[in-house]
Amino acid sequence: MSESAKPITAAVLIIGNEILSGRTLDKNANYIAQKLTEKGVRLMEVRTIPDIAETVIASVNELRHKFDYLFTTGGIGPTHDDITAECISRAFDVPYEQHPQAYEVLLAHYGEAELTDARLKMAKMPKDATLIPNPVSGAPGFNIGNVYTMAGVPKIMQAMMDHIATDLAGGDIVHSKTITCGLRESELADELTDLQNKYPDIDIGSYPRYAEGQFSLSVVLRGTDVEALETLAQEVQNIADAKRG
Amino acid sequence: MSESAKPITAAVLIIGNEILSGRTLDKNANYIAQKLTEKGVRLMEVRTIPDIAETVIASVNELRHKFDYLFTTGGIGPTHDDITAECISRAFDVPYEQHPQAYEVLLAHYGEAELTDARLKMAKMPKDATLIPNPVSGAPGFNIGNVYTMAGVPKIMQAMMDHIATDLAGGDIVHSKTITCGLRESELADELTDLQNKYPDIDIGSYPRYAEGQFSLSVVLRGTDVEALETLAQEVQNIADAKRG
Repeated sequence: MSESAKPITAAVLIIGNEILSGRTLDKNANYIAQKLTEKGVRLMEVRTIPDIAETVIASVNELRHKFDYLFTTGGIGPTHDDITAECISRAFDVPYEQHPQAYEVLLAHYGEAELTDARLKMAKMPKDATLIPNPVSGAPGFNIGNVYTMAGVPKIMQAMMDHIATDLAGGDIVHSKTITCGLRESELADELTDLQNKYPDIDIGSYPRYAEGQFSLSVVLRGTDVEALETLAQEVQNIADAKRG
Repeated sequence: MSESAKPITAAVLIIGNEILSGRTLDKNANYIAQKLTEKGVRLMEVRTIPDIAETVIASVNELRHKFDYLFTTGGIGPTHDDITAECISRAFDVPYEQHPQAYEVLLAHYGEAELTDARLKMAKMPKDATLIPNPVSGAPGFNIGNVYTMAGVPKIMQAMMDHIATDLAGGDIVHSKTITCGLRESELADELTDLQNKYPDIDIGSYPRYAEGQFSLSVVLRGTDVEALETLAQEVQNIADAKRG
């Protein structure tokens, strides 16, 4: 990368046994990835782990130090297996306690009679965290340092991520161009290698697909310079057209 | 866990910029997770990383030492961005070279005239690796040590995983029972905590869903003792029924 500014980087940490057992297909990481790409933030790692406290704490500390942002999903509900807020408090070594503003949010959502101990658990988080609103079901997410903690339920996570994205400091937007053709990957490999050497600032990816007995190939060009992307896209298209002869 | 035998564990490493950019929703990890669950192997981590050689090598070495098995997907095609086979050779510190048997497979698939240099790249892998057949497009995956390297194209990956799974040594199968009800998570939280304390060998997860303005809740019980699962499932069902009045 020969860009002027250092890219802003991020990781996603998915906390959920149901993903690891294969019961649930995670779509949250994909949603976050798209939002980050729109903001010019480079997602560098997605990690899915079980709700084991030591694993959550170690992963949070590793990833928050390694990247500019860390986004977590899952484990902030009212039940015994919701350990994320406590683990993030321990990772930051700050008290895990009832957040006055989160308490007000829950009180307004449930009313005093319905604000049970189980629901009050959702007001406990790292001391002095900033809330992330939950327009769907009340219980907020939170931000501390460079870590953003969101719900696992996709509808709620999406609303939280949309909220976060509005104020997120990003960098140069990475644009992409896709050229799709009926060639096999190996038929374009040499030319793509030459083009990658010619355009070192553009990331050239080639993604074969196989459906109904047919191969197709998407060549995806990604970079911050739109004009260079257009020029390269035309070159790839010309080569693909010539190969199809 | 108070099981007699130590559980067999695994990680999945997804190598692919297209997942991290949000362009592609990964479904391979979910497929592998289901296969592993069927075999009694516990998937403990899924990690998605970009195709940066140092990152691939470090991740492979970390995960293959930490878990009993490591499964990788992506990056074994013929183009410049396919660096997985070389990185795994480097992680194991063995020569990255043309595999005689893989060469034969490619020769049979393409024929001599069509076996270009780009395609021959797909015969290069860690010395003495064991091939994983590719019934879809010829180019094989491979196994070295406890690492299984598969294609990223889902149809091909699935065929490779099915092949691997037939011979994979697993452990006690983790069975699951799901109880679905119209309660909110917080209405069952206390009872689930008590039940988790009563049944420490069963993993009790609660997963709220939100669709069309309605919450529903799945309580998922996972454990190796089918009889205990049935008993606990009945207890949860009774509690849920009573709460619904």
